[in-house]
Amino acid sequence: MIHLVQPDLALAESLFDGLSSATRRGRGIVRDSYGPGEQAAHDIMRAAAEAIGLEISRDAIGNLHMTLPGRDRGAPRIIIGSHLDSVPQGGNYDGAAGVVAGLCAVSALRRAEIEPPCDIAVMAIRAEESAWFDIAYLGSGGAFGLLDPACLSIPRSDNGRSLEATLLERGFDPQAIRERRPLLDASKVRAFLELHIEQGPTLVAEGLPAAVVTGIRGCRRFRNARCSGKYAHSGAVNRPHRHDAVAATVALLHHMETIWLQQEREGADLVVTSGELYTDPAMHGPSKIAGETHFVLDVRSVSDATMNAVVAEARQAAARIGDEYRVAFDLGTTSDSPPAVMDDRLRRSLMGLLDRPFEMASGAGHDAAVFSKLGIPTGMIFVRNDNGSHNPDEAMALEDFAVATRALIGLLSNFPL
Amino acid sequence: MIHLVQPDLALAESLFDGLSSATRRGRGIVRDSYGPGEQAAHDIMRAAAEAIGLEISRDAIGNLHMTLPGRDRGAPRIIIGSHLDSVPQGGNYDGAAGVVAGLCAVSALRRAEIEPPCDIAVMAIRAEESAWFDIAYLGSGGAFGLLDPACLSIPRSDNGRSLEATLLERGFDPQAIRERRPLLDASKVRAFLELHIEQGPTLVAEGLPAAVVTGIRGCRRFRNARCSGKYAHSGAVNRPHRHDAVAATVALLHHMETIWLQQEREGADLVVTSGELYTDPAMHGPSKIAGETHFVLDVRSVSDATMNAVVAEARQAAARIGDEYRVAFDLGTTSDSPPAVMDDRLRRSLMGLLDRPFEMASGAGHDAAVFSKLGIPTGMIFVRNDNGSHNPDEAMALEDFAVATRALIGLLSNFPL
Repeated sequence: MIHLVQPDLALAESLFDGLSSATRRGRGIVRDSYGPGEQAAHDIMRAAAEAIGLEISRDAIGNLHMTLPGRDRGAPRIIIGSHLDSVPQGGNYDGAAGVVAGLCAVSALRRAEIEPPCDIAVMAIRAEESAWFDIAYLGSGGAFGLLDPACLSIPRSDNGRSLEATLLERGFDPQAIRERRPLLDASKVRAFLELHIEQGPTLVAEGLPAAVVTGIRGCRRFRNARCSGKYAHSGAVNRPHRHDAVAATVALLHHMETIWLQQEREGADLVVTSGELYTDPAMHGPSKIAGETHFVLDVRSVSDATMNAVVAEARQAAARIGDEYRVAFDLGTTSDSPPAVMDDRLRRSLMGLLDRPFEMASGAGHDAAVFSKLGIPTGMIFVRNDNGSHNPDEAMALEDFAVATRALIGLLSNFPL
Repeated sequence: MIHLVQPDLALAESLFDGLSSATRRGRGIVRDSYGPGEQAAHDIMRAAAEAIGLEISRDAIGNLHMTLPGRDRGAPRIIIGSHLDSVPQGGNYDGAAGVVAGLCAVSALRRAEIEPPCDIAVMAIRAEESAWFDIAYLGSGGAFGLLDPACLSIPRSDNGRSLEATLLERGFDPQAIRERRPLLDASKVRAFLELHIEQGPTLVAEGLPAAVVTGIRGCRRFRNARCSGKYAHSGAVNRPHRHDAVAATVALLHHMETIWLQQEREGADLVVTSGELYTDPAMHGPSKIAGETHFVLDVRSVSDATMNAVVAEARQAAARIGDEYRVAFDLGTTSDSPPAVMDDRLRRSLMGLLDRPFEMASGAGHDAAVFSKLGIPTGMIFVRNDNGSHNPDEAMALEDFAVATRALIGLLSNFPL
C-alpha cells in the first residue's frame, strides 16, 4: 500500500537541472548564503511549490515554508527539508537534494490525493554552510531564535559585508536575530525529516543506495595541542637523553589509534583524526631532534560517553608518554559539540521502509542537529554519493535519490504516533 | 710513570681566557671561518707555540702546524689537533679545546724533557664548521687535496664573498684547492688525535669526565620523504575508507622506533630521528583528514651494516604500511655519509689511560673523520660538556679537560707501535 505512492522523479530531475543551470559558475556550483546564488535556488523551489499548489510563506530571515495542508491545521506539523546554499565551487546535491525530496514527496501525496493528518511543510533553509559567514546553521538556528546577535557583524568571506547588511540588502529582518525572536515554535513541530547526500564513501563502498542516520556525531577537539621537548643534534644525542617531541607525538597518536581500534571492536561509533601536525619550520631541521610539535586531535562519536572516555584516555596517555619521552604535552582544552541523536521510532520506521536496511552515523553536521537538540523527533536519511561533497564532483544517482525519497513518502503516509 | 707528566693547566686556562676575550661578540663566540675571529684564535695559538718553543709553519690554506721535534725527523709524525673556527654565537670550547689540549700536551712533554720518537705536530685546522661557507672540513679536507674546486665559489653566508675571494684577502692560496694539491702527505702521518667537547648530554648524564670515541656515526637520510593520501572530512569518513597520511606516517615512524629498540637490544649503535614532520598548511585543517605529509627520516650509526639494515626495513615498512592505510609513501633517495671508525689500538690505549674507562660513538662529524677515511690511525677523546655545543652556554670544566688531556699525554708518552 505504502509503496504505491511513488516520488515525482520527473519533477526531481527538472529541479536538479534547473538548479544546476541557474547556479553553476564555471565547473562548480555557487549558491552563496544570503546571496544571489542561494536566492536563485529559493526562486526555483518557490515556483515548483506554486505549481504543486502548496501554501507558501517566508520567515523574517528568509527560510521558505511550502506547506501541504493537513486535516487538522492546528496540529503540530511535520517539517521536511534541508538547506539550499552551497560552499563556493560546491556540488549540486549537498543540501538541495533534501528540499527537492520534500517537494517530490508532497507532490506525490497530493497527486495520490492523500490528505495527511497534519500539515506537512517543506522547508528550504537558509545559510547552513559556514563558508560564507563563519557560522553554521544560520537559517535553522535563526528560525528558533538561537543565534547570538553578535553574529550580525560577521563579514561575508568574499566581499566583507556584514551579515546584518547582507540581510537588509535581501529585504530580510536582522532585528529578529538581534531580539533572538523564535520564528518557529518547537512545540508546534511534530517531527523534522531531512534527506541529504552522504558526504563520505561508506554507501559507495557498501554498494547500497541509502542509509538511515543513527545520529550526527558530536566532536571533542583538541584544537591546539602541543608537545614541548628540546632541540638537539640528531646524531649526538642517544635515545635515553632525548626530549624528542616528534617521537613522543608519534607515540601518543599511535596509542590513540589502538584505543580507536579497541572501541571499534567493542562496537562503539568513533573516529579519531589528527589532520594538522607540524614541527616548527623556523626551528626544525633535517639533522635536529625536534623540540616542539603542534597538532590537532579530533574525536567524534554519536555517543558522549565514548567521546568522554577517549578524551580522558588521551589526557592520561599524554601524561604517561610525556614522562616516558621526557617531554611535556599541553593538549589544551577541547572545543566540544554534542552529538545529535535521531529519534528511535523514526529510525526504526525508516529502516522498515528500505529494501536493504542499513544504518550509519553522520560525521558532518546538518540542520537536523538543530531540530534534534530542541527535542523535536528527528529522522534523517542519506543517499549514496560518490567523490565526497563540497566539490563540483558530487555524484548522486536519481535512482538512489528515489529509494530514499520513497522511504520518506512511506513514512509520511503512515506516520508513527 | 705515565701519569707523572701533567698537562700545563695554567697554559690551558690562559688560552681559553684569551680566546674568550678576543672572540666574544655579545653573549656568544664568533670565530668566523677564514675571518677575523678565526684569525684571532690562530694568532693566540701561534704566540703560545712560540713561547713553548715549537716549530711553526702554515700551509697554503692557513692550517697552522706547531711541531715538537722528535728523535727521527724523517719518521711519519703524529698530529694532534682540531679546528679553531666556531659557528656564529657559538661557545668557547667546540674545536678550540682540541688545539689547546695539543699545546698543553706538547708543552708538558717539553717541560718533562721527553723527546718523542717522531715529530708531534699540533695542528690548528681551519674552517671545520659549515655555518660560514656551506661546506664542512674545508681545512682538513683541503690539507689532503680532497676539496672539489667548485667550492671556491661558495659565498660566505653573512657577507656573500666567495671562498676564493676570502682566501685571497687573508693571503692564502686558492690555487691549492683548484689544483687539488695535497698539502699534507697521508702516508707521512702516523696518527691523528683529536680532543673535542661532547656535543650531546651523555657524559653529563653518566657523571663521567671523558670518553673514548668508538667512531663517528655515518648517516643515511631520507631528506624529502612524503606520504600521499586523500584529504577528506574527519567526521564523515570511517576508518576503513580513509587514506589518512598522518595516521600512516605515525604508523611508519612508530614502527621505526620499534626497529631502533630491537637494534639497541642487540647491541647495535643507532639513532633514528624525524626532526621535520608536517602536513601542508595550505591544505590541512582541524576537521580534515590529512592528504599529505612531508618528513625527514635520519638514520645514523658507526656501522654501515646497521644503517643499511634500517634503511631496507624503512622501505619495506613504507610499502606494507602504505598498502594497509591506502596511501603511497615516497621516501626518495637517501643522502649518505659513511661512518668513520677510530683505530682499535688507539681506542684500547686511551681506554687504559682513563680511571673510569667509557666508550661512546660521536654523532656529529669532526676533522678526525677526514683523517680516518684516509686510513690514518685516528683516536678521539670527548670531554664532558653541559648545554650542548654551537651555543654560548657550552660548559666544559677545566678538571674534565685535564682528565682527557692527561690521557693524550699518556698516549704520546708511550705510543703504541
